[in-house]
Amino acid sequence: MKIYDWYDGPYPARVRIALAEKGWLLKTEFIPINLWKGEHKKNEFLAINYSGTLPVLELDDGTLIAECTAITQYLDALDPSGALTGTTPAEKGIIHMMTKRAEIEFLDAVSVYFHHATPGLGPEVELYQNPEWGNRMHDKAIRGMHYFNRVLQTQTYIAGDAFSMADIAVIGGMIFSALVKLAVPAECTALREWYSRMQARPSVQQWKAMVDAERLQRKA
Amino acid sequence: MKIYDWYDGPYPARVRIALAEKGWLLKTEFIPINLWKGEHKKNEFLAINYSGTLPVLELDDGTLIAECTAITQYLDALDPSGALTGTTPAEKGIIHMMTKRAEIEFLDAVSVYFHHATPGLGPEVELYQNPEWGNRMHDKAIRGMHYFNRVLQTQTYIAGDAFSMADIAVIGGMIFSALVKLAVPAECTALREWYSRMQARPSVQQWKAMVDAERLQRKA
Repeated sequence: MKIYDWYDGPYPARVRIALAEKGWLLKTEFIPINLWKGEHKKNEFLAINYSGTLPVLELDDGTLIAECTAITQYLDALDPSGALTGTTPAEKGIIHMMTKRAEIEFLDAVSVYFHHATPGLGPEVELYQNPEWGNRMHDKAIRGMHYFNRVLQTQTYIAGDAFSMADIAVIGGMIFSALVKLAVPAECTALREWYSRMQARPSVQQWKAMVDAERLQRKA
Repeated sequence: MKIYDWYDGPYPARVRIALAEKGWLLKTEFIPINLWKGEHKKNEFLAINYSGTLPVLELDDGTLIAECTAITQYLDALDPSGALTGTTPAEKGIIHMMTKRAEIEFLDAVSVYFHHATPGLGPEVELYQNPEWGNRMHDKAIRGMHYFNRVLQTQTYIAGDAFSMADIAVIGGMIFSALVKLAVPAECTALREWYSRMQARPSVQQWKAMVDAERLQRKA
């Protein structure tokens, strides 16, 4: 199993954490696609993923699977123990809903803010920016944090009683928010408390240790 | 089972076609949320779906499931015969990838074009528009049609050898394109041929007959 990604990217984090939940993080080969050099937007990579996004999973037979939800669904079907995408029909539906909601209301909004209303990956990569749209997505992301805070006031995890792919998607949003210095509002205490629990989770600690190790190597 | 939707909406079409594939279309209660009056953006509906989008499924116990992919995943888990979301791990991954790709590269792009670069649902509903972004999404949608045309040059369905949720997502894009008069480029012959086959499919014909019937009733 190979993953094309960039070691500290927020979307790559989602799949790396899912891999860690399954115990497969250290068994996976990672192929770096340098976001800061725009390698994900070059023709060589666009042949791997038309959408030009990371991460992408490549199976041993060459099959390519892009999109975090799709990759997580694949991993979860391979090993249904410790299900990340639910077991009953209703769980599956709710987890997919909350994962998508985490993307549109939070993670993707932070991403659009970063790429359109900040220098993003720099002038050589950000060939088109729409700052008005980016700033609107900034405000949407803040509203999204408040929404997930309300969700977490009455339940332990984003999609209910159990950790799932939806938690990982919101973790991705928190990671991206930290990178772009988008502060979590102080009044979002349930969201902050949940994130402390998430950061203590072995899969998230393994992800972080791997990122820290690679960051040090790249600096050396 | 109840669905909150609007009878001829392109996203509602995705779930109605999935229901028809399962033989449940006529057993479902549909509760109209009038898009043209902006009912989907009012507080009463936002309590049902924070994202303010249609459709939403309500189960008999009151559980709410929004997002077409999530609802389809629920329906498919209830009745795995004639799977719409795949059977093997790789099928599941590829179908989820292609469904998401159909959204970001085509259906959602047409939607943003409609809401931002045309009068959309009218001035009372479209309180903010970003025409530059809308027009950019117009161009993205056209590129998306060319992409899916290339996909269909070498395989029978959007995600491979079998009809799936990914075909339904592209059908949603074609339905929305027709509504906003976005023509499918003449040279996209594989996409056009596939769409003829899709329109002959019983589930799509049932969806169309239901929409036509309701349209006539509403005019009367």
